[in-house]
Amino acid sequence: MKSRAAVAFAPGQPLQVVEIDVAPPKAGEVLVRIIATGVCHTDAFTLSGEDPEGLFPAVLGHEGAGVVVEVGEGVTTLQPGDHVIPLYTAECGKCKFCTSGKTNLCQAVRATQGRGVMPDGTSRFSYNGEPLYHYMGTSTFSEYTVLPEISLAKINPDAPPEKVCLLGCGVTTGIGAVHNTAKVQKGDTVAVFGLGGIGLAVIQGAVQAGASRIIGVDINPAKFELAKSMGATDCINPKDHERPIQEVIVEMTDGGVDYSFECIGNVEVMRSALECCHKGWGESIIIGVAGAGQEIRTRPFQLVTGRVWRGSAFGGVKGRSQLPGMVEQAMRGEIDLDPYITHELPLEQINEAFDLMHEGKSIRTVIRF
Amino acid sequence: MKSRAAVAFAPGQPLQVVEIDVAPPKAGEVLVRIIATGVCHTDAFTLSGEDPEGLFPAVLGHEGAGVVVEVGEGVTTLQPGDHVIPLYTAECGKCKFCTSGKTNLCQAVRATQGRGVMPDGTSRFSYNGEPLYHYMGTSTFSEYTVLPEISLAKINPDAPPEKVCLLGCGVTTGIGAVHNTAKVQKGDTVAVFGLGGIGLAVIQGAVQAGASRIIGVDINPAKFELAKSMGATDCINPKDHERPIQEVIVEMTDGGVDYSFECIGNVEVMRSALECCHKGWGESIIIGVAGAGQEIRTRPFQLVTGRVWRGSAFGGVKGRSQLPGMVEQAMRGEIDLDPYITHELPLEQINEAFDLMHEGKSIRTVIRF
Repeated sequence: MKSRAAVAFAPGQPLQVVEIDVAPPKAGEVLVRIIATGVCHTDAFTLSGEDPEGLFPAVLGHEGAGVVVEVGEGVTTLQPGDHVIPLYTAECGKCKFCTSGKTNLCQAVRATQGRGVMPDGTSRFSYNGEPLYHYMGTSTFSEYTVLPEISLAKINPDAPPEKVCLLGCGVTTGIGAVHNTAKVQKGDTVAVFGLGGIGLAVIQGAVQAGASRIIGVDINPAKFELAKSMGATDCINPKDHERPIQEVIVEMTDGGVDYSFECIGNVEVMRSALECCHKGWGESIIIGVAGAGQEIRTRPFQLVTGRVWRGSAFGGVKGRSQLPGMVEQAMRGEIDLDPYITHELPLEQINEAFDLMHEGKSIRTVIRF
Repeated sequence: MKSRAAVAFAPGQPLQVVEIDVAPPKAGEVLVRIIATGVCHTDAFTLSGEDPEGLFPAVLGHEGAGVVVEVGEGVTTLQPGDHVIPLYTAECGKCKFCTSGKTNLCQAVRATQGRGVMPDGTSRFSYNGEPLYHYMGTSTFSEYTVLPEISLAKINPDAPPEKVCLLGCGVTTGIGAVHNTAKVQKGDTVAVFGLGGIGLAVIQGAVQAGASRIIGVDINPAKFELAKSMGATDCINPKDHERPIQEVIVEMTDGGVDYSFECIGNVEVMRSALECCHKGWGESIIIGVAGAGQEIRTRPFQLVTGRVWRGSAFGGVKGRSQLPGMVEQAMRGEIDLDPYITHELPLEQINEAFDLMHEGKSIRTVIRF
């Protein structure tokens, strides 16, 4: 079938909105009509060409919501008309990872997903007869996209797709990291490095957890107002201080925070985030994705004296089991998605969404098909 | 009073066994007669001059056992005749750290201990009228030493001091890291980097915890026999492999170990220890003490995909509350101290203990006064 899609033909170039061909779903696969999709920094990272695993030409996009159109052979848990959120972290429920009870990092389709193809090793997308790569197993920048059944969370059909699409990545990543990875408790102190969409979601999660103090850190003070309105108790700008920001935070908090979150992808900031944690028990969670080949570093003494360094992917959330519940929370207002959505644009203007992001003017732009 | 002591007059020089003067205990302090002391790599590290916090001249030693001789004003929990193990990690029971329930890193006497003096800022040791520095708050290389009351664990008087002195550092550090820091459970897989005293203690702790596989790693294969006799299921030598040892371990264990322990103090090995952990949940514990200014590094992706980087000091053991129980375990044979004690020497031959250690011929030499 034909589908409108924003295609990344080459790194560093704008997307081109064209009509592509989408093949029907094979066994275990599902054809979905995307209703809305967010534009995330990870899409921009890959489009820039800095992502060493980036493949072109490809259909990017991984933060969507849509409706099932057709299911392939053997698909039992979904049927046409079901509302779904695509998952870049699948949940097969059967692999060593899914059954461990310790992680959300299902590996069932990881290898082929990383190579930009479906589990059978081929693509469902083509343009003028030439195949296009899938992206993160989701490719939500196409009105019609094909995913493995295990890469779709079935959600309440009454949920507004143009909002809950954000639960497909950023908001879930931030809130989930607070509850599933850090396990912030009432009264804990928190520092959040980077006040974009994920940082704001961390703040929202920390408020839910009852954190006593939530310190937002960003070099763009224009972001402080929104961060405070969402629950940050303090906002600080490293540029306002001569000393390393970790020292400032340690002093502000009588020894450091209980938990810190890096929501940028900058390895120097990751170090600051670790070192602003309290001796003896402070834990730092890396959420941001660093550039290829970059490394984090610190003195091992930081860990020997009790700090813990962790990371989080998709907020530690198991997509098929846990995301439907988060959609319900959003519908009940327990997760507020409105503050993240600063702009809405039609697919044809998707490049403007990237511009807004790069200019620091948007938190999230939602694309409607 | 006069006391025989092995004094470190200057970095890089042998200790000199001389007669020093020991002042009586002040308020809150306790005079202890040391019966036996181990010689640990940390003593050698400081003696070498590489320890940036090393002070000279000083009375080194931190792995001892002895008997209380005299108590200062206000001391209520100890009296002459009590058997004790000196603690380089005090336990005041009152500070933010002690009451947190999250760490053993009591900070009550940390600052003065680091400056080589008692909590009042002065030393109890002198030689020819010139003060000598204390070391790690313990200075067990003197027959008579003075410590804060909160830096002494009262133990069963029937425990053999020439054995349980090893619970003052190495053995407790290794076993404690397994149970308190990593919390290894039955069936877990473990890798141990460095098969010296601490590494062997990690193996002993892992056996107690019911680990299903315990992989010892060392570049000195002469250490494999003892490691296996204590419970290592596999021993591997990185020099036997072309590939990084973490890749070898990941392959051996179908994805990596559940827990790894670095017991050397080598920042490159710390990286290997992290990266041999299983994606999704593997945790690496740094126990070894690295040289001044050295840094650990890895790609943040290692953490984002679920590995956790931690450290452990004194095995996470609270000395006054938990060490007496470990002494009881040793008396019941649940902790076997005999394998660690490869040599015994009188104080006068203490420099031979350092030689044996540097030559890799000893696990622990116990000095008897």
